[in-house]
Amino acid sequence: MISQDLASHTAAQLDQGEPLYRKVAFRISELIEHGTLRPGERVPSVRKCSAQQNVSIATVTQAYRLLEDRGVIEARPQSGYYVRRERWSPPPEPAMTKPAPRAVDVQITDLVLQVIKACRSPGLVRLGASLPSPELLPIKELQRTMAAVGRRFPLTANSYEPPPGNEALRVQVARRALEAGCTLAPDDIITTVGVTEAMNLCLRAVAEPGDVIAVESPTFFGILQIISSLGMKVCEIPTYPRDGICLDQLSARLDCCRIKACIFTLNYSNPLGSCMPDEKKKRLVKMLSQRKIPLIEDDLYGNLCFGPRRPRAAKAFDEDGWVLLCDSFTKTLSPGYRVGWVAPGRFRERVEFLKYVNTAAGPSLPQMAIAEFLQNGGYDHHLRKIRRVYAGQMQLMTEAIGRYFPPGTKVTRPTGGMCLWVELPPHIDALEVHHLAMAAKISIAPGQLFSAKQKFTNFLRLSCANPWSGAIENAVRTLGQIIAAVGARANGAGRNGR
Amino acid sequence: MISQDLASHTAAQLDQGEPLYRKVAFRISELIEHGTLRPGERVPSVRKCSAQQNVSIATVTQAYRLLEDRGVIEARPQSGYYVRRERWSPPPEPAMTKPAPRAVDVQITDLVLQVIKACRSPGLVRLGASLPSPELLPIKELQRTMAAVGRRFPLTANSYEPPPGNEALRVQVARRALEAGCTLAPDDIITTVGVTEAMNLCLRAVAEPGDVIAVESPTFFGILQIISSLGMKVCEIPTYPRDGICLDQLSARLDCCRIKACIFTLNYSNPLGSCMPDEKKKRLVKMLSQRKIPLIEDDLYGNLCFGPRRPRAAKAFDEDGWVLLCDSFTKTLSPGYRVGWVAPGRFRERVEFLKYVNTAAGPSLPQMAIAEFLQNGGYDHHLRKIRRVYAGQMQLMTEAIGRYFPPGTKVTRPTGGMCLWVELPPHIDALEVHHLAMAAKISIAPGQLFSAKQKFTNFLRLSCANPWSGAIENAVRTLGQIIAAVGARANGAGRNGR
Repeated sequence: MISQDLASHTAAQLDQGEPLYRKVAFRISELIEHGTLRPGERVPSVRKCSAQQNVSIATVTQAYRLLEDRGVIEARPQSGYYVRRERWSPPPEPAMTKPAPRAVDVQITDLVLQVIKACRSPGLVRLGASLPSPELLPIKELQRTMAAVGRRFPLTANSYEPPPGNEALRVQVARRALEAGCTLAPDDIITTVGVTEAMNLCLRAVAEPGDVIAVESPTFFGILQIISSLGMKVCEIPTYPRDGICLDQLSARLDCCRIKACIFTLNYSNPLGSCMPDEKKKRLVKMLSQRKIPLIEDDLYGNLCFGPRRPRAAKAFDEDGWVLLCDSFTKTLSPGYRVGWVAPGRFRERVEFLKYVNTAAGPSLPQMAIAEFLQNGGYDHHLRKIRRVYAGQMQLMTEAIGRYFPPGTKVTRPTGGMCLWVELPPHIDALEVHHLAMAAKISIAPGQLFSAKQKFTNFLRLSCANPWSGAIENAVRTLGQIIAAVGARANGAGRNGR
Repeated sequence: MISQDLASHTAAQLDQGEPLYRKVAFRISELIEHGTLRPGERVPSVRKCSAQQNVSIATVTQAYRLLEDRGVIEARPQSGYYVRRERWSPPPEPAMTKPAPRAVDVQITDLVLQVIKACRSPGLVRLGASLPSPELLPIKELQRTMAAVGRRFPLTANSYEPPPGNEALRVQVARRALEAGCTLAPDDIITTVGVTEAMNLCLRAVAEPGDVIAVESPTFFGILQIISSLGMKVCEIPTYPRDGICLDQLSARLDCCRIKACIFTLNYSNPLGSCMPDEKKKRLVKMLSQRKIPLIEDDLYGNLCFGPRRPRAAKAFDEDGWVLLCDSFTKTLSPGYRVGWVAPGRFRERVEFLKYVNTAAGPSLPQMAIAEFLQNGGYDHHLRKIRRVYAGQMQLMTEAIGRYFPPGTKVTRPTGGMCLWVELPPHIDALEVHHLAMAAKISIAPGQLFSAKQKFTNFLRLSCANPWSGAIENAVRTLGQIIAAVGARANGAGRNGR
C-alpha cells in the first residue's frame, strides 16, 4: 500500500514502455514492501544505486524523487535517503453503498447552492472543490498558444463556428481518444462548453422530463442537479468504492425501476474515486446495449490515472452506439477555457441539434488554443507530471487523515483522480462539520451533497488538488479536532436522551 | 425616403450632440427632398459647401461620403458630386401579418437544419445569414486585448468563474445598459454563452414543457427551435412591419391562448426589422406586468440603430421585474467570442441556478477581453461606424431589389439591424427559390423558416451585412431572374390546372 500506484502493477506491465525511473522506483519499493529495507534504514545512495541497477544518476534521482513524493522514503540533509520511519497503515475502506431500489426526486439544490456560495469566500484552505490547482496548469503556454492562433487565424477566431465545433480540436480529440481505447472520427465528436453542457445535451437527447436516470451512489452533485433541472428522477445504484457500480444490482433495478438511461463516471468517479475494471466495463456496455439503454459516460477524470496506463473508456467497448462519451479539458488543462466534447454514438444528430439550440456555438479561440496545444505534443508530458503530483498529494492526504481523524474513520483508496471520500464515525453530521470548518476557514464538501435525498450524513469529500503545505496539514489537523468535538457532542446528546 | 435614417429625425433631435457632418448631410438631403436640388444636378462643391455652411472641408467630405453611401448623391470623376439621376421610389411595404389565434407545435426543425447546412458550403454569395461581416469587426483590437488581459490576469483567465460570471464584464454591461434606458446593477446581470443560452435559461426559468410562448410573426427560427426543443408551444402574434406586435391582438390572445410568457425582439426584430416605439413598449410592459406574464426581451439588434439615438429596451419600463433582458456582443463585436448576458429581473435566482447546471460557467478570457474593450472606450466609435455602414448597405440592397425583383415585390423599411424581409408575388415558393439560388451559389433564408408551420411561403430574408460589391449586385440580379422564372412556371402550372 505504501507505493500503491507502483505496487498495483506487475513488473510485466511496467516493462512495456514504462520510463526507466519508474522501474527503478518500483524495484526499490519492492525491497521496502518485502522488508529487505526497513523503516529508518538508509536507502542505497544515488551513486551506488546507479551502479547496482546499471542506470544513470539522473534516472535514480528521478526515481528517488518519485518515492519521496509518495512518502515511501525521505531525504535527510547531508545524509541521504531513508525509508520512512512511520510504518504506515491507512485507515480502512468504506463498504459498498446500499441505496434503496427506487426512483426519487433530487432534493439537494438549495443545500448545494448554500455550500458552494459559502465555499467562495476568500482566505479559505480549499479542501472542498474538485478543481485543479493553478500551479499545475500550463497557463503561460496556453496563453501564448491562444495569442498565436488568434494572430494566425483572425477570421476563424472571431467568427461563429456552428456545431459540431472547431475541426482542428475534433481531430486532436479523436487522436487522443485512442489512449482510452476508442476509435473515433472527428465527425463523431461535437465540442461543448465543458462536460456540463455535454451531459445536459446527452440527457436531453435520450430522456424526457419524468424519466428515471440511473446514477452511481454516491454521485457528483452537479450530475444530480442537471438531472433535477431537466425534470427527471434518479435511481441510485449500489457502488463499490474500488470497482464502481454493482452490475447485479444494476441489472435488477433496470427491470424494476423503468430506468431510461444511465449516467456513470466509470474512471475515478467523483466522490468515490472508484474505477471500474475494463472487463467489467465491457460487461456493463453489453448489458445496457442489449436492453437498448443509453449509457452517458463521464470520463472527466480518466486521464488522471496514477498508474502507467490510463483505463479504457466504456465507449471502447461500444459496438452499437449506445454509449455517449463526455469529456473535457477542465481537470487537466484549463478550467477557465470551458472546452469539452461529446461523442454521442447513435444519438449524434439529436445531440448536435440540441447543441445548436442550447448555445448555438462555443467560443472559437479556446477550442483553437487547446487544439494547437495538443498538436504540439506537450500534453503527454504535462499529464505525466500532474498524475505524479496528484498521486503524491493523495498519499499525503490519506496519511494525514490517518494521523488526525478520530478512530473509526474510513477512507477510499483511489488509483486516480483528485478526491478522497471519507467515512466518519456514525452520528457525526457532516453538515455540522462543514459549518464549523467554514468558521475555521476550511472548505470541505459534506456527504449530503452526493445523493438525491441528502444521505451520507457522516461522509466528507476532501480534495487533494492543491500542493501539500503546512497550511493544508494544519487544516486537516483542525478538521480532525472539529470532527472529534462534533462526535463527542453527538455522543453526549445521545446519552442525555436528546 | 432617400435618406431615410437622416430624414426620420427632426432637426431638433439632430442638434442634440449629433456630429456636425451628419447635420450637414441632413441639410443637403433636405434640399434634395424638397426639390431645391434635382436628380442629375450638381451638388455644391466641397469647397463651396464648406464656405456656405461655415464648416471645415473635412466635415463636408464626411457628409458627402455619408450621402454617397446612402445612394443620395454620386461622385463623377473629375467633376464633383451629383444628385443621383434615378429618382428612386422603393417597393411598397408588406402588410401586418395575421397568424391564427392558437397555440401550435413548431414544425420547422428538419427544414432549418437542411437550409443551414446547405448555406455552409464554400464559395457562396451569402445573403442568408444574419451575421456581421468580418470586415466590420475590430478583430485585431480584440485579439490584442485578449492577449493583454491573459498576461495581466493569468489566474483569472485560466480559472473557472461560476455564475453570475466575470465581474468586470458585468460592470461594463451595467454601464452601457444606461444607453437603452435601463438602470442595472452588476449583480442584476448574469453572463451567458451568447444570447442563445440566455434565452434558453429564461424560457426554462419561466415556463415548463407544454406551456405556450407568445412570439412575433414572423420570428427568428432560432427562437422557434429553442421553444420547440424545450417541449413548449408557440402562439404567433400579428405584427406590424414597422411598429412590431399589435398590442390589441396580443391582449386578446393572452386571454384565449393561455400564454405563459412572451419572447419578443422589440428593436429591429429578425426578420421583419420592426422597431416598437418606446411609448408602445411602455404599454406592453404594463399590460404584461399587470397579468404577471414574463417578457423575455431579445435586444440583440438594439445597438444597430441607423438614427442618432438607440431605442430603449422594454426593460427600461420594467418596474416589477417581469422583463428578462437578453443581449450579446455577437452582432456588434465578435460572433466567435460567444459572450452574452441576461438581466432576469425577478427570476434572477432561478436563471443563475439554470446557468450553473447548463454550462457551469462561461470561458473567462473572452468575457475579460470584451470587458476591457468596453472599458477602453472604443465601442461607441465602433458602433457609430457600423451603424453608418449597415444603413448604407441596406439602402443599396433595397434599391437593388427595386431594380431587379419582379413587379409585385414588397420590402420592409427597417431603421436598424441588418436584414430585409421581402414579400414576393403570391404563388412563388421561397423554398424553390432557395434551391435554385443555391445552385447559382447564392444563399438566402426562405420565409418558411420563420413561423411554426412553415407559412410565409412567398417571403425571403436577405442579409445586408456584407459590404456592397459587384458580386452582391450580380447575386441580387440573378435572384430576381430566378424569382421571375419560378413565378412564370407557377403561373403556367396554374393555367394548366396543375
